[in-house]
Amino acid sequence: MTTGENHIGIKRSAKGGKTYTTFNPKLNIENEQIFTEASSEEINQAAELAAEAFKSFSKKSGLEKANFLRAIADEIIAMGDDLIAMYQSETGLPEGRAKGERGRTIGQLSSFATMLEEGSWVAATIDTADLDRKPIPKQDIRKMLVPLGPVVVFGASNFPFAYSTAGGDTASALAAGCPVICKSHPMHAGTGEMVSDAIIRAAQKTNMPNGVFSNLNSSGIEVGIELVTHPDVKAVGFTGSIQGGRALYNIAAQRDEPIPVFAEMGSVNPVVLLPKAIQNRGEALAKTYAGSITLGSGQFCTNPGLILGIKSDSLTDFISTLSEEIVKLEPSCMLHPNIIGNYEKNKQIAIQQEGLTVNADFQDSVAVNYARQAIVTVNGLTFLNNTTLHQEVFGPFSMLVVCKDANELKLVISHLEGQLTGTILGEEKELQEFPELIAALQSRVGRIIFNGVPTGVEVCPAMLHGGPYPASTDSRFTAVGVHAVNRWVRPFSFQSWPNKLLPKELTDENPLGIIRLVNGKNSKDKI
Amino acid sequence: MTTGENHIGIKRSAKGGKTYTTFNPKLNIENEQIFTEASSEEINQAAELAAEAFKSFSKKSGLEKANFLRAIADEIIAMGDDLIAMYQSETGLPEGRAKGERGRTIGQLSSFATMLEEGSWVAATIDTADLDRKPIPKQDIRKMLVPLGPVVVFGASNFPFAYSTAGGDTASALAAGCPVICKSHPMHAGTGEMVSDAIIRAAQKTNMPNGVFSNLNSSGIEVGIELVTHPDVKAVGFTGSIQGGRALYNIAAQRDEPIPVFAEMGSVNPVVLLPKAIQNRGEALAKTYAGSITLGSGQFCTNPGLILGIKSDSLTDFISTLSEEIVKLEPSCMLHPNIIGNYEKNKQIAIQQEGLTVNADFQDSVAVNYARQAIVTVNGLTFLNNTTLHQEVFGPFSMLVVCKDANELKLVISHLEGQLTGTILGEEKELQEFPELIAALQSRVGRIIFNGVPTGVEVCPAMLHGGPYPASTDSRFTAVGVHAVNRWVRPFSFQSWPNKLLPKELTDENPLGIIRLVNGKNSKDKI
Repeated sequence: MTTGENHIGIKRSAKGGKTYTTFNPKLNIENEQIFTEASSEEINQAAELAAEAFKSFSKKSGLEKANFLRAIADEIIAMGDDLIAMYQSETGLPEGRAKGERGRTIGQLSSFATMLEEGSWVAATIDTADLDRKPIPKQDIRKMLVPLGPVVVFGASNFPFAYSTAGGDTASALAAGCPVICKSHPMHAGTGEMVSDAIIRAAQKTNMPNGVFSNLNSSGIEVGIELVTHPDVKAVGFTGSIQGGRALYNIAAQRDEPIPVFAEMGSVNPVVLLPKAIQNRGEALAKTYAGSITLGSGQFCTNPGLILGIKSDSLTDFISTLSEEIVKLEPSCMLHPNIIGNYEKNKQIAIQQEGLTVNADFQDSVAVNYARQAIVTVNGLTFLNNTTLHQEVFGPFSMLVVCKDANELKLVISHLEGQLTGTILGEEKELQEFPELIAALQSRVGRIIFNGVPTGVEVCPAMLHGGPYPASTDSRFTAVGVHAVNRWVRPFSFQSWPNKLLPKELTDENPLGIIRLVNGKNSKDKI
Repeated sequence: MTTGENHIGIKRSAKGGKTYTTFNPKLNIENEQIFTEASSEEINQAAELAAEAFKSFSKKSGLEKANFLRAIADEIIAMGDDLIAMYQSETGLPEGRAKGERGRTIGQLSSFATMLEEGSWVAATIDTADLDRKPIPKQDIRKMLVPLGPVVVFGASNFPFAYSTAGGDTASALAAGCPVICKSHPMHAGTGEMVSDAIIRAAQKTNMPNGVFSNLNSSGIEVGIELVTHPDVKAVGFTGSIQGGRALYNIAAQRDEPIPVFAEMGSVNPVVLLPKAIQNRGEALAKTYAGSITLGSGQFCTNPGLILGIKSDSLTDFISTLSEEIVKLEPSCMLHPNIIGNYEKNKQIAIQQEGLTVNADFQDSVAVNYARQAIVTVNGLTFLNNTTLHQEVFGPFSMLVVCKDANELKLVISHLEGQLTGTILGEEKELQEFPELIAALQSRVGRIIFNGVPTGVEVCPAMLHGGPYPASTDSRFTAVGVHAVNRWVRPFSFQSWPNKLLPKELTDENPLGIIRLVNGKNSKDKI
C-alpha cells in the first residue's frame, strides 16, 4: 500500500540516507513502514521538474485543470477504507473525523474545479484603444491573473487531508496553474504517500505534465529549508506553528529573489463574554464551550484558547459551570507523543505563571497520549503584564481573563497579537453598547463571530481564514475558500496584442463567457 | 509659499537639527528654502496620530473618501502656476511635462474617487446560512475588504507629482481607508510641501480626521528607516532604486510584526526585435526608439534600456540608424547633480566592460547637468556571462545585445531579471513563429507590449505596473490603476453578524447597489 519512497513526479525515488517511521498514538506503537527522507539531489530534481512542468501546466485551460482536480477527488475516494485506516493509524483520530475531513478535502477540490469551470476568477480586465485621443493615443491593454510558478506546500500535523497533501493549499495552487511540491508531514507520511499516489494517478489520467506534483518525505527541517531556498520555487504555503512559519518566512525574505510565503500560524481565538449574555444564558454557553474547547482534543487552529469577560457574579458562575462541565468530558487521544508532550509542557508553563488559578484540570488516569483538559483563570492586569500568558497552548486548554471593567477588557483586546478569529458572545443590543471594544477586536482578527464558536471553518467564498500577524504572515490573503487561489497568481498585462493570439479569457469574442471588467464596466458581452 | 517645516497632521513642526535645500539643475544653483528633517519625536508623533486617525478614517464611507480625493485634486489645481514653477525649479523638467504630470495625478485621484463612488471594489462576498444543513448547520458568513492601517509612502525622484506626495501610492492608500505618512523626497521637498498643503486643506474641508496625512522631510535614509520600523505603520509603498527598495523590504521583513512593502524598483525593459520587423521597417523603428530612449532624459522606470536582436544585416542597419538618430537629439537636463553623477558613473562602468562596443555617445559640449545619450552593443554570450551588463543605467542609455540565433536570444531572455515591461517588435505572424521566446519574455515581465514603446504607463484598470522581482517586491500587485488599492486592504469576515449592524456593503438590503458575490453568483440584488 505504501513504499516509503518519495514521488519525484511519476518516478519513485529513495536515495537519501535518513529514514523514519510514523506513530500510532492510540496503540502507542511505531507503524511498520519505513520512510526515506528526500536527498538534496531529489529535492533539486523535484524543483527542476516542477519548473519544466510549469511551462505547459500554466497554459492548461480552466476545464483541463478542473478535470484534474475532480480526478484527484475521485482517486482519493477510490482508495476507500484503506486510506481511512492509514489516516487513523497515523493520527489516533476517530473514523468519523477521518471521513469528515476527507469529505471536506473532496469539497475543496470540487469548489476549485467549479471556480475553474466558470472561469471569471482570472479577473479579466480590458481597456480598449482610443487611438484618436489627444495628446497621446490610448493603447489597448488587457490584464488577467497568471500563475506564479512552482509552489511548495507544507502539510499540517492536525489535518492530514484538508490542510496537507491534497488540501486547500495544493488545490488552490493547482487551480492557479502552479505545480506543487509537497513537503510531506512526518507524522502522517503514509497518508501523504497514499494521497500523493492519488494525485499522480489523476495527473496521468488527465494528461498533466510530469512534475505537476511531487511529494518529498522529511523528518526534520532540512528538506523544507532546501525547498524554500531553491531558485525554481516561486511561493510557499504553510500551516503550523508560529516558530516554523516565521522561520520559512525569514528564509524566503532573505533569498536573492524573495518569494511570498503564506503561513497560517498560531491563534488563541479570543472569545469575549458580554455581561448580559452570560447573565441570561451563561450556563448554556459554558456547556457549549466545554465542548468546543475539547473538540478533537483542542487540535484546531481555531480552538478557543482565551475567554475574556468582565468581573461579575455571572462570570464566576460561568467559570464554575465551564470547569465542572469540561472535566465530565472524556479525554481523547492526541496526534503524536510530541504533540501531547508539547501540550503538557506548555500547559505547565502557563499554570506556573504568577497570579494564575487552575479551575479545572482533568485528574483521572487516562490512556497514554490522551490529553487532560484544563481551564485556568487570571485577572486582566496580570494578563496584560505577562505575554507568556498570550502564547497558544495547543490542545484542550482555555484561559479565562477576568477584567475589572469594560475599559480593561478593551485594553486587553487591543494588546492581543493578531488572531484567526474573535468571537463575541452577547445580546444583540450589547454590540451597540460596546462599539470601541468590538472595533478593537475587529482590528486584531481575520474573522469575527457573533454568538457561535470559532471551531468549524466553513469552506465558502466568504470565509477569511488568516488574519493579522502572527495568525498569518500576510493578512491580505485567505487559506480557505476559492479566493485562496489569489496567493499563487499575479496580474499580467498585454498591450496592443493581436486579438487572435491573446488567451481566450481576453479576446474580443469572450468565448468562455466570463465576467470581465471592460472599460470600467462588468460585462459578459463581446467587444 | 513654503516654510521648510514638516506636516504632522494639521500641525507644522520643525524640531530636528538637520537641514537641507533642494537644487535647481537647470540654473545649477541651490534653491533658497531651507528644509528641516523630521526628528525621531516628530516621526513618532506622525505615526501615533495616523494610528489614531485610522480609527475614524477607516470607517468613512466611499462617498466621503471620494470627496476627500476630489478635494485634493481641486486644491492642487488651485495652486496653479506657483506649483508648476516650484516643480520646475526642483527638477529642471519643462513646463509641459510638469503640467502633464499634474494632469496624470489629478486623473489618478479622480479614478480612485470614481471607484469609491461606485463601491464594488470592496469585493463583498456573502454566503447565507443554511441552519438545516446536515451534519452541521451552515452559518451566515460575509466578507469585504478593509484597510490595513497607516501606510508610509516614499516619494520618487523622477515623478514629484504622479509617484510622490499625492501620487498613486497615496491616492490608493487613502482610497483604501489608510492614513498616509509621506516620506518626502529630498530632491523636491518644496513641491512635496506644497502638495502636502493641498492634501491637508482638502482633509480639513471634507472633515477627515487630523493625522489622515502627514509629510516628513528627510535628506538621508534615517527618517525612512524609523518610519518602516514604527509599530503603528502597517504597510509601505516605495518607488525608486533596487538598493533602496530592497533595504526597506528587508527592514520590514525583520520586524516583530512583518509588514508588506510594495516597492517598484529597477527595470531595463527589454525590447525584442524579431527579424522580419526590422527587415521591413527597421529605420522607422530606430527613429522611434531614439526618441523613446531619450524621452525625459531617460528618467522613466519604463525606459527601454536593453534591446535584443538576432545578428543580421538588418540589425546592423538598425543599430547604425539608431546611433545616428540618437545623437541628433538635443540632450536635456537631468533631475539633480546626483542623478547625472550616477548616470555618468554607471554608463562608464558599462562601457568599460570587456566585449562592449560604443556605437553612439553624444560628444558635443552640453550645459551642466545635461545628460549625454549613448548606445552600446554587446554579443549574446558576453551579455550572458557578465551580469554587470544586466544592471540598469538610469538615463538616456540603451544596450543592444546581438544574439547569434533565436536560441541564444531565448537564452538571454530567460536569464533576465524580472522586469516591469517587455516589448516585442515584430510582424504578427512572427509571434507564432517564436512561441518559446515569447513565453520566456512573459515569464520575466509584468506587461508585454506588441509593436510599441514601454514608456507611457496608461492609468487604467487593465494596467499592471510592477512585475517579477526586482521590478517589484511582490508581483501579485500593481502600482498603477485602481487595482493598486489591493496593496493596502485585507479581506475580513463577519460570521452570524446581525444584519443591521453590518457595514452597508454587506447588509441584506444592499443600499449601495454594489455588485456582490452572493452564494457564488455576482449580483446587485437584495437578499
